[in-house]
Amino acid sequence: MLKKTVEDMCRKAKDASFVLANTQENKKNAALLYLKDLVDKNRKDIKKVNSIDIEYARKNNLNTALIDRLMLNDKRIDGIIASLDTIVKLKDPIGEVIDGYKLENGLNIEKVRVPIGVIGIIYESRPNVTIDAAALCLKSSNCSVLRGGKESINTNKLLSGLIQEALKMSKLPEGCVNLIENTDRKGVEYLIKMDKYLDLIVPRGGEALIKFVTENALVSVVKHDKGLCHTYVDEYADISKATDIVYNAKVQRPGVCNAMETLLVHKNIAKEFLPNMAKKLTDAGVELRGCKKTKTILSNIADAKEEDWDIEYLDLVLSIKIVDSLEEAIDHINTHGSSHSEAIVTENYSNAEEFLNRVDAACVYVNASTRFTDGAIFGMGAEIGISTNKLHARGPVGLRELTTYKYKIRGSGQIRE
Amino acid sequence: MLKKTVEDMCRKAKDASFVLANTQENKKNAALLYLKDLVDKNRKDIKKVNSIDIEYARKNNLNTALIDRLMLNDKRIDGIIASLDTIVKLKDPIGEVIDGYKLENGLNIEKVRVPIGVIGIIYESRPNVTIDAAALCLKSSNCSVLRGGKESINTNKLLSGLIQEALKMSKLPEGCVNLIENTDRKGVEYLIKMDKYLDLIVPRGGEALIKFVTENALVSVVKHDKGLCHTYVDEYADISKATDIVYNAKVQRPGVCNAMETLLVHKNIAKEFLPNMAKKLTDAGVELRGCKKTKTILSNIADAKEEDWDIEYLDLVLSIKIVDSLEEAIDHINTHGSSHSEAIVTENYSNAEEFLNRVDAACVYVNASTRFTDGAIFGMGAEIGISTNKLHARGPVGLRELTTYKYKIRGSGQIRE
Repeated sequence: MLKKTVEDMCRKAKDASFVLANTQENKKNAALLYLKDLVDKNRKDIKKVNSIDIEYARKNNLNTALIDRLMLNDKRIDGIIASLDTIVKLKDPIGEVIDGYKLENGLNIEKVRVPIGVIGIIYESRPNVTIDAAALCLKSSNCSVLRGGKESINTNKLLSGLIQEALKMSKLPEGCVNLIENTDRKGVEYLIKMDKYLDLIVPRGGEALIKFVTENALVSVVKHDKGLCHTYVDEYADISKATDIVYNAKVQRPGVCNAMETLLVHKNIAKEFLPNMAKKLTDAGVELRGCKKTKTILSNIADAKEEDWDIEYLDLVLSIKIVDSLEEAIDHINTHGSSHSEAIVTENYSNAEEFLNRVDAACVYVNASTRFTDGAIFGMGAEIGISTNKLHARGPVGLRELTTYKYKIRGSGQIRE
Repeated sequence: MLKKTVEDMCRKAKDASFVLANTQENKKNAALLYLKDLVDKNRKDIKKVNSIDIEYARKNNLNTALIDRLMLNDKRIDGIIASLDTIVKLKDPIGEVIDGYKLENGLNIEKVRVPIGVIGIIYESRPNVTIDAAALCLKSSNCSVLRGGKESINTNKLLSGLIQEALKMSKLPEGCVNLIENTDRKGVEYLIKMDKYLDLIVPRGGEALIKFVTENALVSVVKHDKGLCHTYVDEYADISKATDIVYNAKVQRPGVCNAMETLLVHKNIAKEFLPNMAKKLTDAGVELRGCKKTKTILSNIADAKEEDWDIEYLDLVLSIKIVDSLEEAIDHINTHGSSHSEAIVTENYSNAEEFLNRVDAACVYVNASTRFTDGAIFGMGAEIGISTNKLHARGPVGLRELTTYKYKIRGSGQIRE
C-alpha cells in the first residue's frame, strides 16, 4: 500500500518533470513568490500545527536540541521567507550554454545545462528544509519527492499544502513537489529503489540513514553526511591566528558539519601553543581529549582513545593529537577525515601549498576557519546541503549542482563516414 | 581468498592515488610513451598470447562477433599505439582552475580540477580496453583497478605486465594500474563493494552486468549501458536527408551503442518516405519490423511487437513506428529510449527546437546521424565510454569527465562571525 503510494507519487513527479524542464523562469518565480506570501499569511496556523509536533516530541522525551530544531517561531518563519526571496533572485541555471563549438563537418555542438529530473530528498527534523528543498528544486526545474522526519510530520504536511496551493496558483503541475506523508521507515526503502522514476537521492542525516541509503539505493546518491573536520597547527603557525581559528572552528557553532572535531598540532609548537589554547577552550566549556604526547603538556585532560579520531562529536568536545610532521598530519586527515573541510594554520608557503594539494577534501583552507564551508558564503545564494561525494557535486550544493547537461547537436544532413 | 586479493589491490591503488594525484604531467606522459614502445616491441608476444585466447574461444564455441572483438592483429595493435599517442598529446585536465573569486572578507576561493581517485573498470571481451582505460585513468591522475572478461585474460595479463614495466621505468607506484587476474564472477561483486578504497565504478557491458552492478554496488557507478537510439522523420523532413541519415544510423555500424534501433515516422510523410527507405534498408540486409500502420504501407515486413520498442538489437534489425505527431514521437522516445542519442529530421524550426528541448537524452540531434556520439568526434581525443547516467558525466566520457574538483581557500586568519 505504502509502496504503491510512493510509486504513484514518483511516477507523477516524473511526468511533471517533463513539463517543469521547459517551464520559463518567470513562472517558477511566480510560484515561489505565491508560496512566500502563503507562508507569511499562514504564520498562525504554522505555529499552531508546529506546536502539536513539539508537544508530541516532549511527550516522547526527545532531547532539547532535537526539539529546538523542530521548532518554528516567527524568527524562523522570517528565515523561510528570506530564503524564498533569495532563491527567487538567484539566476536560473537552466539553459546556460556551458560549452559550444563547431566540428569540421559543420555539426554545431552545444553543451547546455538542463535539470536532473526527479530528486528524492530524505531529511530529518528541521521542517524549514521542506520549503528550502522544494524551492531550490523548483527553481532548478527539478521535481522533488520529499520524505521528512516523523517528528515534524504535521508541520511538513501543512507546509506541503501551501506549496501545492502555490503550484496551483501558478498553473504548475502538482507533481512538481511531493511529500510522502506516511513516515513509516519502509517509505525510505521504497523511495530509494524507484530508479525507474527518480534520478537522484539526496539523504541528509545521521550515519545510520546514510549507510542504509548507500547500501540499498538503486538510484544515484549524493551524500550529505558527516563532517569530521580537522585543523592542523603547523610548526610555522602564527600562534595568535591559530588560537582564533581553532577557537572559532570548535566553539562558534559546534553542532554543524563544518565545525572542527580534531585538532592536530606539530610537536615543535605544541608546548608554546597548547596551554593557552586549552585554557580558552575549557573556559568555553569544551571537553578536551588528548593523545599521549598531548597529555605530557595538558596533564589534566581526558585520554583520546583510538576511536576518538573517527567520532563526529557535533558538540563541545575536541580530540587533540600532536604530530611529528606535516606528512603525519596529512596522513591522519586522509585516513580519518570525511573529505569535508580541513584547515592548516601556517606562515610557511611550501607547507601551505603541500597541504592544499595533498589533503583529499571538498574544501581545504589555509589560515581560515573550516566554518566557512557554506553555499551562501561561497556565493551560491542557498544550498541544499554539503556533499561529501566526490562525484557529480562536491562541497556546497546550490542550484547549479542540481543540474546536469545535454548536448544539442544541429546539423544539415551530416552522416558518419 | 579472491576477496582478500581484490581488497589488497584496491588498498594499494588507494595508497598510490595520493602519489598520482600530485604527479606532474611529464612523468605521466613518460609512462605512456614507455608503454607505447613496449607494446610496439612486443607485438609478436602479444599476438601469440592473444591466439591462445582466440583458440580457447573457438573451442568453447563463442560466436564469431565475439571472437572478432577478442582478436589483436597488427592493425589493432597500431590502433592501441595511436590511441596512446593521442592520450599523451591531450592536455592534462588536473590543476585547471575552473572558477575563482574573492569573498568580501578577503578569503580567496579557487575551484580546482582534481582526480577522482581510484576507478574500478569492468569490461568484457576487447583487450585493447585494458590499455585504453589504464592510459586515460593514468593521464587524468586516477588509479585504476581493471577487471576484464575471462575470454581475453591471457592477453590482458600480458598487457598488464607491459603497463607495470612502463610504470616501473617512469618510477610510478605499481598500484597506479591493477588487473584482477582471477576472472571468477565473484571478483566483480567484491570490487563493487570496496567503497572504502574505490571512488567510482565504470561498468561497460551488457544489460545483465549493468543490472548486477547497479543493484549491488556500494561505490558510485557511472553506467555505460545500452543505446536504444531513435531517428524521428518529421512531416517536414527533407526526404533525401532523411534517407541518408536513417541509412547511416542503422547500417554504417549496427553493432555499436549509437546506432539506431527504432525509426519513427510522421504519418503525413510515411507513404512518400517509407517504400524507398525500406528498399534501401532491406537491400543492405536489414530486417524490418513494423507497427500496424507501417504494415499498411510495407505489407511484407514482420510485425513489431510491443517488446520491440525496448530491444537494443545491435544488429541489422530495425523496428518502425508511424506516429501521429511530434508529441507522440517525443513521448515514445522519452518512454522507450535509453537517454543516449536521439535524432529528428525536419526543416521546421519550431519542431527542431521542441525536439532538442524536450527529448531527455545525452545527445539530441537535428538533421544528423546518431552515429556521431563519440568522444573523439566531440573533440575529447579519446573516451572511456559513453555514459547513460545523468549524474556526474553524461554522454562521452573523456579525461575531463574522469575528474572532480576541490575548493582551495586561502585566508589570512579569517574566522566566522
